[in-house]
Amino acid sequence: MRFSSRGQVDPFIVMDVVEAARAAEASGRQIIHMEVGQPSTPAPAQARAALVEALERDSLGYTVSLGLPALREGIALLYARWYGVDLDPARVVVTAGSSGAFVLAFSALFDAGDRVALGEPGYPSYRQILRAMSVTPVGIQSRPENRYQPVPSEIPADVQGLIVASPGNPSGTMLGKPQLAALMAEAQARDIAFISDEIYHGLHYGDRAVSALEVSDQSYVINSFSKYFSMTGWRVGWMVVPEDHIRTVERLAQNLFICPPHASQIAALAALDCIDELEANRAVYAENRRLMLEGLPKAGFTKIAPPDGAFYIYADVSDLTQDSVAFAAEILEKAGVAVTPGLDFDPRRGAQTLRFSYARATADIAEGLDRLTRFMAARG
Amino acid sequence: MRFSSRGQVDPFIVMDVVEAARAAEASGRQIIHMEVGQPSTPAPAQARAALVEALERDSLGYTVSLGLPALREGIALLYARWYGVDLDPARVVVTAGSSGAFVLAFSALFDAGDRVALGEPGYPSYRQILRAMSVTPVGIQSRPENRYQPVPSEIPADVQGLIVASPGNPSGTMLGKPQLAALMAEAQARDIAFISDEIYHGLHYGDRAVSALEVSDQSYVINSFSKYFSMTGWRVGWMVVPEDHIRTVERLAQNLFICPPHASQIAALAALDCIDELEANRAVYAENRRLMLEGLPKAGFTKIAPPDGAFYIYADVSDLTQDSVAFAAEILEKAGVAVTPGLDFDPRRGAQTLRFSYARATADIAEGLDRLTRFMAARG
Repeated sequence: MRFSSRGQVDPFIVMDVVEAARAAEASGRQIIHMEVGQPSTPAPAQARAALVEALERDSLGYTVSLGLPALREGIALLYARWYGVDLDPARVVVTAGSSGAFVLAFSALFDAGDRVALGEPGYPSYRQILRAMSVTPVGIQSRPENRYQPVPSEIPADVQGLIVASPGNPSGTMLGKPQLAALMAEAQARDIAFISDEIYHGLHYGDRAVSALEVSDQSYVINSFSKYFSMTGWRVGWMVVPEDHIRTVERLAQNLFICPPHASQIAALAALDCIDELEANRAVYAENRRLMLEGLPKAGFTKIAPPDGAFYIYADVSDLTQDSVAFAAEILEKAGVAVTPGLDFDPRRGAQTLRFSYARATADIAEGLDRLTRFMAARG
Repeated sequence: MRFSSRGQVDPFIVMDVVEAARAAEASGRQIIHMEVGQPSTPAPAQARAALVEALERDSLGYTVSLGLPALREGIALLYARWYGVDLDPARVVVTAGSSGAFVLAFSALFDAGDRVALGEPGYPSYRQILRAMSVTPVGIQSRPENRYQPVPSEIPADVQGLIVASPGNPSGTMLGKPQLAALMAEAQARDIAFISDEIYHGLHYGDRAVSALEVSDQSYVINSFSKYFSMTGWRVGWMVVPEDHIRTVERLAQNLFICPPHASQIAALAALDCIDELEANRAVYAENRRLMLEGLPKAGFTKIAPPDGAFYIYADVSDLTQDSVAFAAEILEKAGVAVTPGLDFDPRRGAQTLRFSYARATADIAEGLDRLTRFMAARG
């Protein structure tokens, strides 16, 4: 049977690492996982309890396409709590994870043949989802001196959209409010749709991240319950859209998704109130990050991006290798630590970068750093 | 902010009925719901119990993109149980409902500008999802004498795909094996991708439905836990693809969805074994269908499509109205019964058709038929 052209998207290179780590574990080795981008903690206890209760009293059929009204209200209140922003719940669209939000946003904003700019390094699926929708991703090679974030002068001519992420994945770097405002002003002046990926908000270790909604209503803001709320597998996220876009997004959501998973929405609503448990998770990441910032340079990974938030460290390893895929394989083989080669995030410079995730338990991070230190010492 | 052209899809006309019914209920009226396409029953008891247990022992993070291996194996075994087909679990892709399957299928098979044929009347979201992906839907006005199903000679020239549904929505009609095989042979001869929507399989009241997999491996077969398994809000479905399409669909699924909801996959796996409870649901639909086939003609709805399966009756009301939207509004207002105007399913002839759903409790169906009978008698 025929294939489309646009369906031929790139594979995730990290999947080979994941598979190699699985094979090593199957053969009896114990592997430290610094490749995965998800917490090892479950959804908060009260979120799970709320679902157990709902399972007894509700048939959990379709919800309305934009999501449970109580959840949309709860998310709107989160903007008051986190940013002091007064947000109309009508502008909140509950989605099937941030993945679902990207599909809806790109459908609402871009036509086949449009061009959308995004920072490199960045989340690889932006590029692949755009391609699958016949939209052309245009990479901006962001610079270390700009915290691996794009600046207005770097936005290419002739693009219809710009995606930014703060904190970034893989960099963990954040955009300050002036920097974010400058990008948004440039986009608005040039009629470029602005998409702000805020999926790592809540996970900061100094100043909190700034939301695009603190700057202007003229953006699509995308977030999720996956990271801070520790609910990756539940596939529930959200998007805040300009008021005049609500109806368009609603019609697309009705047809493309019908609704986000009902059970996940119930759990997510309760998770909004689980502040103590989620802040305890964040304290673990903070300690992990401290260990990483101390241990990685000692091990020999000295050129790292300013890790403002999320749970990643992005390291320039150009002094150690010109082939990050082979280097990651060597680290897995010899040190028993799984890390992600940078090529997934930056098709140009990623052959000389690695991403380390510190989302797991602190004991694992400490053990991983020991292993990396011994490996690097032996490598000389 | 800018809009895309392709994002401007049609609204669901039934949503106005749903909203009017909600408003009527808010004002104190009691409405019989024959407009909704979902069971009123929850997921099977053992499916819910399996999830409750998993919530205590598993963090429910991301699954692999193609779905839990045990679920893929369980679905493959369903093809042995239902059809006597030996299916390799590697060809089973677990999806975020059949909606997610359509997005993946259309991405893998069609490029912007391609044309895809589909029967009218049919599920409205086929058309809207295709449009949102810059693919042109091409309607086939299927004929009552062909059970409202397309036949090979009606497949338009210059299309790259064909979608069929058996049992169909809204018609409930099925394709026999020779009819299905003839369509598939024609599609293969003309290099047209064949997509078989089998979401209502399991819900038959005479002969069971025939799967495209009984005819040929050269098709995308889409199904879901929503209907027979009574799990609409869980958003878990599946797709069976030709062997050489697995890798392409896997890459798309990784990027577009990451994975289907983990909790829903756990529940779905257990639902596969809940045969007694699901067959009891089917017995309710069978009784409802019997009441409808007896009561609707008596009330005056005499021209109905052969209702082989699903839980719908599709009626030609051209002798009663030229405006199904106004007629549905009148039925809601005067009889207190919510029904779906046909325009969602057939943009040409749907002004003279209605869809009645009999997925709810039998007492509701009986009451609804009483009301429809009195309404029609008073209308004269």
